Amino acid sequence: MTSRQIRLALRAYGVGGPGQHNLWKDPRVPKNASIDIDWYIAQAKAAEHALFDALFIVDSQFIDATYPPHYLNRLEPLTLLSAVATHTRHIGLVGTLSSTYNSPFNVARRFASLDHISHGRAGWNVVTSFDTGTSRNYGLDEHLDYATRYGRALEHVQVVRGLWDSYEDDAFPAAGDVFLDPSKLHALNHAGEHFRVDGPLNLSRSPQGQPVIFQAGVSEEGRNLAAHVAEGIYAPGGTLEATREYYADIKRRAAALGRDPDHVVIFLGAQPVVAGTDEEALRLSREIFEADNDFGRKLGQFGRAFGAHDFSQYDLDAPFPDVAHLAEKSGRTRGTEIIRRATSEGLTLRETVLAFTRYQPSPFTGAPDTVAATIAAWFEAGAFDGLNVGFRTHEDLSRFVADVVPLLQKQGLFRTGYEHDTLRGHLGLPIPANRWSVAS
Amino acid sequence: MTSRQIRLALRAYGVGGPGQHNLWKDPRVPKNASIDIDWYIAQAKAAEHALFDALFIVDSQFIDATYPPHYLNRLEPLTLLSAVATHTRHIGLVGTLSSTYNSPFNVARRFASLDHISHGRAGWNVVTSFDTGTSRNYGLDEHLDYATRYGRALEHVQVVRGLWDSYEDDAFPAAGDVFLDPSKLHALNHAGEHFRVDGPLNLSRSPQGQPVIFQAGVSEEGRNLAAHVAEGIYAPGGTLEATREYYADIKRRAAALGRDPDHVVIFLGAQPVVAGTDEEALRLSREIFEADNDFGRKLGQFGRAFGAHDFSQYDLDAPFPDVAHLAEKSGRTRGTEIIRRATSEGLTLRETVLAFTRYQPSPFTGAPDTVAATIAAWFEAGAFDGLNVGFRTHEDLSRFVADVVPLLQKQGLFRTGYEHDTLRGHLGLPIPANRWSVAS
Ligand SMILES: Cc1cc2nc3c(=O)[nH]c(=O)nc-3n(C[C@H](O)[C@H](O)[C@H](O)COP(=O)(O)O)c2cc1C
Ligand SMILES: Cc1cc2nc3c(=O)[nH]c(=O)nc-3n(C[C@H](O)[C@H](O)[C@H](O)COP(=O)(O)O)c2cc1C
Repeated sequence: MTSRQIRLALRAYGVGGPGQHNLWKDPRVPKNASIDIDWYIAQAKAAEHALFDALFIVDSQFIDATYPPHYLNRLEPLTLLSAVATHTRHIGLVGTLSSTYNSPFNVARRFASLDHISHGRAGWNVVTSFDTGTSRNYGLDEHLDYATRYGRALEHVQVVRGLWDSYEDDAFPAAGDVFLDPSKLHALNHAGEHFRVDGPLNLSRSPQGQPVIFQAGVSEEGRNLAAHVAEGIYAPGGTLEATREYYADIKRRAAALGRDPDHVVIFLGAQPVVAGTDEEALRLSREIFEADNDFGRKLGQFGRAFGAHDFSQYDLDAPFPDVAHLAEKSGRTRGTEIIRRATSEGLTLRETVLAFTRYQPSPFTGAPDTVAATIAAWFEAGAFDGLNVGFRTHEDLSRFVADVVPLLQKQGLFRTGYEHDTLRGHLGLPIPANRWSVAS
Repeated sequence: MTSRQIRLALRAYGVGGPGQHNLWKDPRVPKNASIDIDWYIAQAKAAEHALFDALFIVDSQFIDATYPPHYLNRLEPLTLLSAVATHTRHIGLVGTLSSTYNSPFNVARRFASLDHISHGRAGWNVVTSFDTGTSRNYGLDEHLDYATRYGRALEHVQVVRGLWDSYEDDAFPAAGDVFLDPSKLHALNHAGEHFRVDGPLNLSRSPQGQPVIFQAGVSEEGRNLAAHVAEGIYAPGGTLEATREYYADIKRRAAALGRDPDHVVIFLGAQPVVAGTDEEALRLSREIFEADNDFGRKLGQFGRAFGAHDFSQYDLDAPFPDVAHLAEKSGRTRGTEIIRRATSEGLTLRETVLAFTRYQPSPFTGAPDTVAATIAAWFEAGAFDGLNVGFRTHEDLSRFVADVVPLLQKQGLFRTGYEHDTLRGHLGLPIPANRWSVAS
């Protein structure tokens, strides 16, 4: 048995991550990077060359003109990943798709198709949608409340998994006169609180049995969903203490439900900043922050946690406004924390925005050996199973791969070759038995 | 000005088309062809090498064990086409997607993404879904009736087109401090009978402005939809007389609505059978029919036009059962025709099934010069603008390309090189002006 190793996912850049609002000004980045498929293929290939577990694509479905550049113009995740699939052979392909604004049959088909096209490398990052405005792009006046969103999410995943098992693995003998053995094709006939889906799905299972279920969302409801169905988690970064607590909490919840905690692989979001020396890296990190330190923009983005609420209507120097009724919207966790702190510390709106957007270097900032040592220490301390790393440019990824990854490999903390062809294989996840196949 | 030329689309085989129920037995076809992305990429490359206008992917979202092999296990069209896109450079990529069981925002995003990934080669074949059982995969007891399905389809296309215009073409100066010119981003704020969609879409326009709208469906309502919004049509094959009538009818309807009839490009479905001599081709065609001439299978498939109705419950030798109430389901046109004929000729169920599944060689069956001459004659007679050709194997496609296409080229009826990089370019369709851009 090999000892526990770190997992690495690449959160494709050009999309997502802090400090990217002015990335389009960087001469090394094409101005249309976020819609340039070659830009993504190049990242996927670089990450695969570096033996990463997965490429990770986040998503959003609502914008207005205040949104950061990479949100404004972005490719739909599955369309993107399908194009990437045929240019790679090992790396996992995880796409974010909202369970709130998609139908299970469609989601099941699309991920199962990606799973076939990639020969077993697909993963679905289940989110309930952060941007409340999405509801108005899908015929609803209001974003669904937490209970409904997460209730729907759990049932959604269960239905999708049911559809993925429509065919038993030996359903197609394709011999003699028998193409399909009809006894091995199963309708689902699901009728639940949120969905009625009869099935069967018109797709067989892939080499990994079912795409891997990821989840992102940290509320009580989000953790509960994760404990029930997530096999991978995209968790937000934070202090060592906070991330260890989160990690232990999720593993505990999964175990309490009778699941093997090793089968919930927790990826921490990280934006490493690597340079020749620690000082240089910190200077670089500060520079990136300062270049993008525009209060007006921050105020615009600040509203996202409260359902794209327009905070420019308030006096910046008056006490933080009463927006408690909006904190249940996009993300209760963050909204509640903002309100709690503003209230308990008696902050003005301006002070609150500054407090929550202040300079906070990534814990993985420094010379290569510093960054490698910090990663190793956090890993050993139980803060994560893997990192979901994002970078500003190809060069930053290359530097991380060339200088940091080998130090992790030297300590036996990262693979030195792919041992598997599927995402499940990389993550040490079992192939789910088909629910219809009886052990004989 | 070049004279009018024939368009050619390849209806990807392994999926769809008559005479394919036992194709899996052909040693030249991989048993999993319908889910093998390399199989599709190879077809797309061959068709592009032959200067075809488009690769065409049909779709369905309901199966049971009686369905033909290529329906049972198939890739979702957009996922498929996105993978094909980066392996081709000129050929158009047309995917079938149901307006009945998809949301406009999602459809707009996915096709716009494919349009960017392919640099302007995407087309959406709008269908209202043939298989009535699809409704039960999307939470509905019953397939929507014709009026609702087609009303929804028209509004759906209008919303999707509105979303595709969210950004004016010069919305992103990406110069100085200005990434986006916010005055060039437009919400749609659509509120209609079937949809409420605020927008804007989070994607800019591609080199062809908007993906091309195709349509397939021949009822009064279907023709009406086509006349309003279709820029391409996938029309069923038939006699020369019937196809000419259909062609003239569609062009007339489009003109009556003030549209240029040349901007509705009609592709006729065709399954050419080419061999050394006419006799050989006819023998081959008959062979293909006989090899698949199983009455039980035909009876199973016969029910599809009546909402997957199970006809095995009736006495085969009694008069054709009264299923008039089911003829409005999947496709009224075919259902009504079956009933009319069975009634007027006093046919039994068995006789009716045989009448509608009898041997009918493709009009494009014969030696290369026969097939080329027939294609030319039908084209000149106004039966079609293009053919949507399907073949059983790569070899059959190769033969058509090697032996028939050059004869069309020699007559000036088919291009000898690509003159454009976009699907609109190939089809002679204008780039739709962005609705927000005011002529200055
Ligand atoms: C690390 C992380 C990444 C997320 N990524 C996305 C995303 O890409 N798209 C999205 O709509 N929501 C995303 N979410 C938001 C969740 O789906 C969820 O809607 C939101 O966080 C509110 O739920 P919560 O309070 O449970 O976190 C993410 C959440 C977290 C914590
Ligand atoms: C040539 C042709 C191709 C079609 N292809 C599809 C298809 O791929 N998927 C689908 O669901 N329906 C397809 N349809 C069906 C139409 O969407 C429509 O639902 C059905 O034909 C009933 O409408 P109609 O009476 O207007 O033809 C096709 C129809 C025609 C005529």
